[in-house]
Amino acid sequence: MAEEGSELERGLHAIVGSFYRYAEGSEGPKELDQAAFQNLLRNELSHQLTDQKAALDMFRKVDANNDQKISFDEYWDLIVEICRVIRRSNYNE
Amino acid sequence: MAEEGSELERGLHAIVGSFYRYAEGSEGPKELDQAAFQNLLRNELSHQLTDQKAALDMFRKVDANNDQKISFDEYWDLIVEICRVIRRSNYNE
Repeated sequence: MAEEGSELERGLHAIVGSFYRYAEGSEGPKELDQAAFQNLLRNELSHQLTDQKAALDMFRKVDANNDQKISFDEYWDLIVEICRVIRRSNYNE
Repeated sequence: MAEEGSELERGLHAIVGSFYRYAEGSEGPKELDQAAFQNLLRNELSHQLTDQKAALDMFRKVDANNDQKISFDEYWDLIVEICRVIRRSNYNE
């Protein structure tokens, strides 16, 4: 399914799929540890996060509950923030 | 920028861009009227919303403040819901 579909549908699958490609966890909800999160940033968000130092600080910022893991909900907050930047820079909103 | 970048970055641009491709509004924030919203659903989300009748009802559901327009924030709630369905069906979460 992920390969077919419109650009928007592929985008939705890419956003969800990117988290699970890097997340680990045998039982319970999957999460990203610091290494997995850095890999995701470097491989998947290199154009959005050009400042590598900011990328290192990003883990602390995104890990809202400070449990040293990034849950899907915390990852989603990062997605919301990046889309806000895209709206402002590309659509003046 | 939207063409380069990773699958995730292209996805982020696709999600924001799809709204503005259909939204109108000369001044103030862009919005989708019912016709524009139906076009977006039919062209961009045809695989996600297979039940066309549900697509027709969808406008009322997504138009949370009943102003007969879909704002970006209301559109985003639809995006969140579709990603929740993808998580459940593809990743059992």
